[in-house]
Amino acid sequence: MSKFCKIFRIIFVVQLLTDVSLTVRYDPNWKSLDSRPLPDWYDDAKLGIFIHWGVFSVPSFSSEWFWYDWKQRGLPGIIDFMQKNYPPDFTYPDFAPEFKAEFYSPIEWASLFKQAGAKYVVLTSKHHEGFTNWPSKYSFNWNANDTGPNRDLVGDLADAVRDYSLKFGLYHSMFEWFNPLYKSDAANGFKTQNFVKSKTMPELYEIVQKYKPEVVWSDGDGDAPAEYWTSQEFLAWLYNDSPVKDTVVVNDRWGKNISCHHGGFFTCADRYNPGKLQTHKWENAMTIDHYSWGYRRNAPLNNYLTIEELLKTFITTVSCGGNMLMNVGPTSYGRIVPIMEERLKQMGEWLGVNGEAIYGTRPWSHQNDTVTKDVWYTKKKSSTGYTVYAILLQWPKAGTLTLGAPQTTTATVVSLLGYQGNFNWSKGPTGGIEIKFPLIGWNMMPCKWAWVLKLDGISN
Amino acid sequence: MSKFCKIFRIIFVVQLLTDVSLTVRYDPNWKSLDSRPLPDWYDDAKLGIFIHWGVFSVPSFSSEWFWYDWKQRGLPGIIDFMQKNYPPDFTYPDFAPEFKAEFYSPIEWASLFKQAGAKYVVLTSKHHEGFTNWPSKYSFNWNANDTGPNRDLVGDLADAVRDYSLKFGLYHSMFEWFNPLYKSDAANGFKTQNFVKSKTMPELYEIVQKYKPEVVWSDGDGDAPAEYWTSQEFLAWLYNDSPVKDTVVVNDRWGKNISCHHGGFFTCADRYNPGKLQTHKWENAMTIDHYSWGYRRNAPLNNYLTIEELLKTFITTVSCGGNMLMNVGPTSYGRIVPIMEERLKQMGEWLGVNGEAIYGTRPWSHQNDTVTKDVWYTKKKSSTGYTVYAILLQWPKAGTLTLGAPQTTTATVVSLLGYQGNFNWSKGPTGGIEIKFPLIGWNMMPCKWAWVLKLDGISN
Amino acid sequence: MSKFCKIFRIIFVVQLLTDVSLTVRYDPNWKSLDSRPLPDWYDDAKLGIFIHWGVFSVPSFSSEWFWYDWKQRGLPGIIDFMQKNYPPDFTYPDFAPEFKAEFYSPIEWASLFKQAGAKYVVLTSKHHEGFTNWPSKYSFNWNANDTGPNRDLVGDLADAVRDYSLKFGLYHSMFEWFNPLYKSDAANGFKTQNFVKSKTMPELYEIVQKYKPEVVWSDGDGDAPAEYWTSQEFLAWLYNDSPVKDTVVVNDRWGKNISCHHGGFFTCADRYNPGKLQTHKWENAMTIDHYSWGYRRNAPLNNYLTIEELLKTFITTVSCGGNMLMNVGPTSYGRIVPIMEERLKQMGEWLGVNGEAIYGTRPWSHQNDTVTKDVWYTKKKSSTGYTVYAILLQWPKAGTLTLGAPQTTTATVVSLLGYQGNFNWSKGPTGGIEIKFPLIGWNMMPCKWAWVLKLDGISN
Amino acid sequence: MSKFCKIFRIIFVVQLLTDVSLTVRYDPNWKSLDSRPLPDWYDDAKLGIFIHWGVFSVPSFSSEWFWYDWKQRGLPGIIDFMQKNYPPDFTYPDFAPEFKAEFYSPIEWASLFKQAGAKYVVLTSKHHEGFTNWPSKYSFNWNANDTGPNRDLVGDLADAVRDYSLKFGLYHSMFEWFNPLYKSDAANGFKTQNFVKSKTMPELYEIVQKYKPEVVWSDGDGDAPAEYWTSQEFLAWLYNDSPVKDTVVVNDRWGKNISCHHGGFFTCADRYNPGKLQTHKWENAMTIDHYSWGYRRNAPLNNYLTIEELLKTFITTVSCGGNMLMNVGPTSYGRIVPIMEERLKQMGEWLGVNGEAIYGTRPWSHQNDTVTKDVWYTKKKSSTGYTVYAILLQWPKAGTLTLGAPQTTTATVVSLLGYQGNFNWSKGPTGGIEIKFPLIGWNMMPCKWAWVLKLDGISN
Repeated sequence: MSKFCKIFRIIFVVQLLTDVSLTVRYDPNWKSLDSRPLPDWYDDAKLGIFIHWGVFSVPSFSSEWFWYDWKQRGLPGIIDFMQKNYPPDFTYPDFAPEFKAEFYSPIEWASLFKQAGAKYVVLTSKHHEGFTNWPSKYSFNWNANDTGPNRDLVGDLADAVRDYSLKFGLYHSMFEWFNPLYKSDAANGFKTQNFVKSKTMPELYEIVQKYKPEVVWSDGDGDAPAEYWTSQEFLAWLYNDSPVKDTVVVNDRWGKNISCHHGGFFTCADRYNPGKLQTHKWENAMTIDHYSWGYRRNAPLNNYLTIEELLKTFITTVSCGGNMLMNVGPTSYGRIVPIMEERLKQMGEWLGVNGEAIYGTRPWSHQNDTVTKDVWYTKKKSSTGYTVYAILLQWPKAGTLTLGAPQTTTATVVSLLGYQGNFNWSKGPTGGIEIKFPLIGWNMMPCKWAWVLKLDGISN
Repeated sequence: MSKFCKIFRIIFVVQLLTDVSLTVRYDPNWKSLDSRPLPDWYDDAKLGIFIHWGVFSVPSFSSEWFWYDWKQRGLPGIIDFMQKNYPPDFTYPDFAPEFKAEFYSPIEWASLFKQAGAKYVVLTSKHHEGFTNWPSKYSFNWNANDTGPNRDLVGDLADAVRDYSLKFGLYHSMFEWFNPLYKSDAANGFKTQNFVKSKTMPELYEIVQKYKPEVVWSDGDGDAPAEYWTSQEFLAWLYNDSPVKDTVVVNDRWGKNISCHHGGFFTCADRYNPGKLQTHKWENAMTIDHYSWGYRRNAPLNNYLTIEELLKTFITTVSCGGNMLMNVGPTSYGRIVPIMEERLKQMGEWLGVNGEAIYGTRPWSHQNDTVTKDVWYTKKKSSTGYTVYAILLQWPKAGTLTLGAPQTTTATVVSLLGYQGNFNWSKGPTGGIEIKFPLIGWNMMPCKWAWVLKLDGISN
Repeated sequence: MSKFCKIFRIIFVVQLLTDVSLTVRYDPNWKSLDSRPLPDWYDDAKLGIFIHWGVFSVPSFSSEWFWYDWKQRGLPGIIDFMQKNYPPDFTYPDFAPEFKAEFYSPIEWASLFKQAGAKYVVLTSKHHEGFTNWPSKYSFNWNANDTGPNRDLVGDLADAVRDYSLKFGLYHSMFEWFNPLYKSDAANGFKTQNFVKSKTMPELYEIVQKYKPEVVWSDGDGDAPAEYWTSQEFLAWLYNDSPVKDTVVVNDRWGKNISCHHGGFFTCADRYNPGKLQTHKWENAMTIDHYSWGYRRNAPLNNYLTIEELLKTFITTVSCGGNMLMNVGPTSYGRIVPIMEERLKQMGEWLGVNGEAIYGTRPWSHQNDTVTKDVWYTKKKSSTGYTVYAILLQWPKAGTLTLGAPQTTTATVVSLLGYQGNFNWSKGPTGGIEIKFPLIGWNMMPCKWAWVLKLDGISN
Repeated sequence: MSKFCKIFRIIFVVQLLTDVSLTVRYDPNWKSLDSRPLPDWYDDAKLGIFIHWGVFSVPSFSSEWFWYDWKQRGLPGIIDFMQKNYPPDFTYPDFAPEFKAEFYSPIEWASLFKQAGAKYVVLTSKHHEGFTNWPSKYSFNWNANDTGPNRDLVGDLADAVRDYSLKFGLYHSMFEWFNPLYKSDAANGFKTQNFVKSKTMPELYEIVQKYKPEVVWSDGDGDAPAEYWTSQEFLAWLYNDSPVKDTVVVNDRWGKNISCHHGGFFTCADRYNPGKLQTHKWENAMTIDHYSWGYRRNAPLNNYLTIEELLKTFITTVSCGGNMLMNVGPTSYGRIVPIMEERLKQMGEWLGVNGEAIYGTRPWSHQNDTVTKDVWYTKKKSSTGYTVYAILLQWPKAGTLTLGAPQTTTATVVSLLGYQGNFNWSKGPTGGIEIKFPLIGWNMMPCKWAWVLKLDGISN
């Protein structure tokens, strides 16, 4: 192609894109909304960091559902905790002034997330307790600026995260367990919308306009339909007219029975990890602590996932087309505790060697191997077609590893990410490939957990 | 009249009353609203108790305007107080959990107000800080049930006050200094009404329906017109359809430039005491503490009005047609401190002797005497016409007291309330009356401050 | 006597006094110690102010015995108070950081005590809780400088009190309810003295040397004999060698069975008021609050003595040879509340008119009258012999007052303090005096409670 | 030997031991005290756990020297921290009520220490702040039972630790930074001993008698000589008459210039690790946190030693004849945070495989190898003489490892702890040994950090 042609083509494409963005508008119904393509950055990113922070970080006990489990479910463990440690009239909002965030350093957080290899960060702007981590106009004296930290926790993190070239997203709970307006709408069978109109929606518009989040991670439908929440109207605005209309991605928790059916990426359930390929882009939102999203002061080591468990979750998620949104719960004083920092840095250490098999990949024809257990695949376009990555959760016990899925060609080349040189291989008797592992000294291993075989010249 | 006739007449009257209450309806404009007659109980009552209680009772310093004077006006005394006693990030809402009301006994309060001779009680349901002393549906976590006292302060007092046969009223601030919705409406020149519609009015309707106050004491127009507040619509509802439509009285603070012009009784300004007869029923809202309505921990004795000052204020107020609403500020722990209790009981002691000259009276043709200073008048219908009461703030220095205003008749009788027997008198040379005071032993005096001469058979 | 002689005599007397103070030393036994004359200032002073202030001022509930009544006696009211308002593990020492004294103004206090007409001030340097209000060397971190107020409460008051020319004294509890060293000495039947030697005595010497108190008001023998406490050794040092040896007065609570028998002035029991002449100088230590020496936040008005009750107590005390030490309990934030301020100023108002009948007086031959109730006597040397003061707690109902005790002479003159002119009188039929009271207008009365007749020229 | 002889011999030995313990008594001078043999259990134990816990765990900032660094040294970081987060008058003792230990589970702690492979545990009974973690008779209201935790932290841990068959020891600071008695003794050039006699020594005797610690770990000579502290008298009692006289070990911090010269094992300096053989048993007291012994809430991951660093420290220490006392700082709420738990469990994991080369060993003739870096030796008696253990901090890069120190014999056998089979070896050209490392698959490695070669049949 002549140089002139190239330039022309570029102009044409730009023109086309501009036209499209000018002309395609979405209507406030699922059919139209679901037709919007997910912006590419998201599928390429693979790893995000989730942050659960709020007044629940003060008792820092049981979980971020502390208030509900105490007052609504009456969990004996929480009732006992309160009786032993607080006066009888102590209320949940009484905890707020103790949320001080005195060591909160958004720059340190962002730097850590970057080191972890994450590409985006999603902070709870407001959890079901209703406490807004930004100075909301609609949550007078029940927000982080008016009481407790006396600071815009959201805005400060947004700036820092962007300084590190990560995408910034916001979690937002639509319902609030104990907000009397929500409760009265619920008692009315959601025929009234006082809560939505004076709280949920004004806040959602406010955070989008103020912080321009590129992920809007909705949660908490409170058993109410999307029509009650006016979710479709919000999304149409978000896609058509908001300041992030071109880049924003959203999830699927926009009303009763909507999750896993409509919206942007699907989250379906917490810790969703279906183990097989999904037809729709999805996300596995999970947390380092087995039992809680908010920080628990009394969590012992074995309540935290090991790096091996984290990698297994991450690799199986990516192989099946998902992103992983890995949650950390900061302390009320604003620190991400060292055990979480360690896990994040271990992720980053692993991705430093093996990121090639993760970022920008797409699921392969097979997600895991047909012969050997604990081998998961990804693929990526390469100059010669596709590279397939076989990710081994276990180091092979014997010197030869048999994989059933890859079909070899004469051009097939096998190597280990982070290790010099290619591995010998032979075609398996009934197809597949048999890979000879050299004896690699302990001190020459590229990493300590999960190893990636790069397979070039594979025919399928 | 035959028995039949009597019964018939009663039925007829009932019918008539019912008709009236069915037929007179008020429109939401001042002309119509102002045409409503003030229910009689109010003019007869003369003395009410005002109570300022809220989160400001926790710092209990400077005044109930603590928050505003700290953050908006930047009063050096408050800035200094905060710097000396609190961490730099401490916020006003952080005080709320310390509002504990642990000694709050509504029955004791009501009993005390009864002993003081008051006929009605007006509590701050919400002051300009926006903290609601009842569990408002519209003030999530910024109310006395959700944080701090963990109790419905309003409802508990309403019950107790009524147990003592006193009328119960509620003060309510329309604006809130720092509510961002109010601030944004203000920034919009009150063209938007987000605050009114989601906060002020829902709350006003809520407290009327829930607590059935017989006084609605509005305050805090925040420089916005009554049209912004929709005050006229509220009052029309209050007069036409509310559960207290027949008995409720309201004041005049319903919007910019409305006070002293429209509404029920006029309050005009704080501590309003014009010193002359008013054409419209009015109220002198004042407070025992010279400088504050909320309790101040560091107020010395001379910041409290003496009983002599209180009685002077009260008597001049009643003489000129006003009621006095005397304020006490309880502590954050729920006590009315002894110096206030003493003042209240001194009022009650005085009214025990002299209440006849106060309750149910109306202004006389003269408010104070034309000759002798510090003599104030009231009058009351009696079987023989009118009784005039001359209230002496000073005990006469000489044995004869000259009054210029009363015109004597041959039927004129002069006595001292609480003292046996009549006083001799003679007509003054140029009208008026000269009253001979007997020498009354110290131990025979009916009271210690302010004495009432009862004048029967006066011709004017 | 010639002028020369007079000067000579003065020199001689001075010489003699100097010699005495140089030569008289006291031995550490009661016989010797009791032989020391009480410095004159004390008997002349009549009125002192007692101040109970400590960690007990924080709960400010029940009384200054809060800790003991909670943990040792298990008073249900206190147990209930703690259960309702504090976490189960809350301890008494946990209250200490809340003792903040942020409004403490020693100058204001001293000024108020001066206005009350008091001549000396006695502060609890340490109550039975063991918390020292000064930075004791022997009470590490359990003193007002190390925790709570972060200030030398004692030293600051000492300076202010002396600026107002009042004498400064210190209360000091020898035992401490829960000090384990005291408890172990007690368990040893006071055969060991670990507590006395490491705590009580070092502290007593410390406060005397540091603050030079002119009253050492000992309390709390803890059922241990003076020999255990080494009280006699301390007193011998105090009288012989301390910086206040010439002016100090002490009370009598120096060991089991010592009170009312040995020491300086006798206090015998709290609120001691025997109603008849005592052979030994004594003090009535009492408190404005009927039920507590420490401030109680929930004390209602009727728990405070009225001014009439205070004056009756004071006058009967002085008539019988006692001083009155009137107690106030400041708040944890350092204020003397207005009701106490009012009582103090009422005392001062009364003494402003009638102090002549109090200060510097001595008991007369009769303490109260033989005929008329509620009349008490004092006497004072005058140029012509003695003046007798008859103090009337009640204003006489009739125009004539009959007193049985005074024997008239022709020189007898009767007047009313604060009132111009003399009263007529006549000798009673069987001795005594009949005094004619003029009719005094209400506005001419010299005071509102308790009136003093000055009787000159009385023969007995 | 006949069976009879054996029994006889045992009886004889028992008799001998009994006699010795009955007859050997130590005099209060270093010569005599130093002559006491160290009980064997200590040298065999190698690993102990140190715990720094106290009021400093509440601010949990900077280090356990917080108070001193704030008030005495004036560290800007601490001054800034206090200004930003506390009111100006806040004192260090004011932190005490916030020391709540609400999650303290001594059983969990002891179980963790057991899993770490430790043989003894040393808790700060009292650090330089003077706060006693037991209910001391000599530290009224400045101890963990009277304020804060409201619990005997020491006694509860002693029981739990012994339930897990670990030895229990107590750290005890002789001086207290701010105790006025200490300061006045210091000002007197330690000519007075008020502090020692009323505080240090009574407490030391108290904890020995009450908790029977088998390690008395003294600290804080405060620049005063042992004679001031009466350390020699205490040790003579401890060795002769205390309940732990037969088993107790002590360290060397008993007075100025005593450390590293007298006492039981030598600690010399914090983190003492001389890197060569010592003639006297010693201990390396160090802490997982590079910068602090007390817990720091804001310590990032890289402030904690990695397991590799911990093992290097431990192995070099043991090779040179030392024990390692590894410190953890619990939180104010009573938890050992997961990053510390992880380090402890990693130690335990390593010792599970390699403990044979540690426990009960003694230094060999060489401490580290003469040829290859990072190889350290221990030795242990075996049935055939001595086994030598070569501990490799690095996995050899090549297939052959050359060691210079061991002299081979024909009976020499080389194996890897935790790995099946023996390694081939040959004598080095100039002595020493050349060991052939087989290629061990990653999944067959016995451990992840530091590997132990067991050398039997070595001639030196």
